[in-house]
Parts: sequence; structure tokens; C-alpha cells
Amino acid sequence: MPYVTVKMLEGRTEEQKKALVEKVTEAVAETTGAQKEKIVVFIEEMSKNHYAIAGKRLSDE
Amino acid sequence: MPYVTVKMLEGRTEEQKKALVEKVTEAVAETTGAQKEKIVVFIEEMSKNHYAIAGKRLSDE
Amino acid sequence: MPYVTVKMLEGRTEEQKKALVEKVTEAVAETTGAQKEKIVVFIEEMSKNHYAIAGKRLSDE
Amino acid sequence: MPYVTVKMLEGRTEEQKKALVEKVTEAVAETTGAQKEKIVVFIEEMSKNHYAIAGKRLSDE
Amino acid sequence: MPYVTVKMLEGRTEEQKKALVEKVTEAVAETTGAQKEKIVVFIEEMSKNHYAIAGKRLSDE
Amino acid sequence: MPYVTVKMLEGRTEEQKKALVEKVTEAVAETTGAQKEKIVVFIEEMSKNHYAIAGKRLSDE
Repeated sequence: MPYVTVKMLEGRTEEQKKALVEKVTEAVAETTGAQKEKIVVFIEEMSKNHYAIAGKRLSDE
Repeated sequence: MPYVTVKMLEGRTEEQKKALVEKVTEAVAETTGAQKEKIVVFIEEMSKNHYAIAGKRLSDE
Repeated sequence: MPYVTVKMLEGRTEEQKKALVEKVTEAVAETTGAQKEKIVVFIEEMSKNHYAIAGKRLSDE
Repeated sequence: MPYVTVKMLEGRTEEQKKALVEKVTEAVAETTGAQKEKIVVFIEEMSKNHYAIAGKRLSDE
Repeated sequence: MPYVTVKMLEGRTEEQKKALVEKVTEAVAETTGAQKEKIVVFIEEMSKNHYAIAGKRLSDE
Repeated sequence: MPYVTVKMLEGRTEEQKKALVEKVTEAVAETTGAQKEKIVVFIEEMSKNHYAIAGKRLSDE
């Protein structure tokens, strides 16, 4: 606790994801006072045909 | 805003998904007064072995 | 199935929410071929201090 | 209703998942009084590079 | 890990919720082989005006 | 995009939440290359009777 979910388009590299969970965990620890050991981060990736803004999927643009 | 997530079994065609996000976005805009440009739709697909009703997975029926 | 979640700021009237679930259900039935009886809609409301864009909460603007 | 989501690392066998949804459904029915026919279970699997504790992904350990 | 979310209508007693998390945790431990200490359960409650089947909210029936 | 959800126990102050969304947004922008303007953060709060580890709710400890 806290539990953080980052939902984003697929395509980031492993290096980016590694840095993402590291930096987000630090930001949460620093601002909430939670112990780093208790912070969990989930990454969820979306494909462009499953994500739409204004009724249009990114894959249809 | 609003953010809409549609969770359903895999197997719909790209044409169906394209129409789905279009029509759902219109329905949300019309009834909530939100601007179409701010409405986001996510599609999440499940496989039959990850979805159960009454304790039985669809893949086991 | 399908399961639809609509996440939005609090403040809509009961009439708006009633129309929202009705119209969204119709849009999903029409485009996916799912039976109306099997379509579920959840509404989730957020308050302005729990929603941020560009690092700024709506309650801080 | 209720709707139960079980999020876990990928790698369980089909037999384990089959038993999981069965036993969880029984536990929910027994304790909430819900009818078994109305209980839905979703399984969501994560990969080790999308799950981090203390800022470190399982795939980086 | 695993992380279990139980979404249900509000109205269960504290005794029911206490039994629910206990029994669900046992069911997950027994069938997945996960250590009990690592199993997390979240309860999410819905009100009847935020939950619809077939386009009709429970509060409108 | 990305969409970040931070789920935590209720009780943080408005100042902490304000700093949380700011720092998390910076961490996500810096590591994923996403534009700050497109990053959304949701805060979800849990009460102690709706959160259990090892089958025991925090409110029962």
C-alpha cells in the first residue's frame, strides 16, 4: 500500500519501464510517507485499437 | 473525462470495435453533457478461461 | 457481459445517470451483438480533489 | 453480482485456475448470501516485467 | 500477490465482510499455492443508482 | 495518456495529495517521454474495513 497502476500505450522499452516504476515509487514514498517496501506498481499496456478519444480509436487515425 | 471501460470476451471484429467506441462516445456525450473531445474509451478483452459465472469458466462448459 | 464502467466527476443528476446507462447499453448491444439482458453498467464518481491533469488537481485550479 | 477480480502473476495451470474460480465463488456465496448463479469471477494475469514492489520489477531481481 | 477485488452492492454487515475476506483468502491460497501473507483483498461497494443491468439501474426498478 | 491510479488508505491531507499528483506526473513524464499535459492521475481511497492482508482486515487488527 499504496497500489499504483500505470495504464499506457504499448511500445515503451524495458529500460523505460524499469525507470518508470523506480521513479514513481520514489514520488509516492516521498509525498505520502508510505514505506518504499510497501509500494506496489502495476503496468498495464493498451494497443492502439483498444483506445479511443472523441469516439475514434488511435488505430483509425 | 468521462473515462469508459468496456470489458468483453475477445472475438469482436475491428469493425465492431470501431463502431462500439463511436456509438458509446455519442451516448455518453448526449446524456452527460461532456464534450466529445474529452471522452475516452478503453476496450479490455477477456479470454474464455479467465471468465467464470457461477464458479464455472466459459472454457469449461 | 459486456461490463461497462463509466468513471466521471460527481455532480450529474439522477435523470442524467438514468439516461446514461440506458443509452450506453443500447450502443453496446447494437455494435457488439450482445443481448441487452447481459450488459452491465457501473458508474464510478470522482471528486475534484482526486483527479489531476498535467499534475494539477481540478480542485486546485 | 458480486464481481470478483483476481490479479496474479501468469504461470498458473488451467487446473489451478479452474479450481480457483470454483472455490472463490463458493467462499463469496457462503459469506455474502449472494446466489452462486450471480457471482462472476475475472482472472487477470500480469507478467514479471509489469509488476514492481519497492520500485523494483520482479523481472529485474 | 494475488490481489483480489470484490465489487458488490453496499449493505453487507461488518461480520459478513470479515468472513468474506477470510474465506476468499483461504480459497485463493489453497488453489493457487500463494502464501496467505501475500494475498490482498479489496472490497468495493456500489450503490443501487450506480449499477445497471439491461440498461436499467437497480434504483429505478 | 498515461493514466495513473493511486489506491491508498484514506487519511492523507490535501497538501499530501496535491504533492502526490504533482510528483507522480513528473516521474511519469520524465521516464516515459509522455507530455505532462496528457498525463492523468486518479486517487482512490480505501477505508480500513475494506482492505485485508492475509485474510484479516486492517480494521480488525
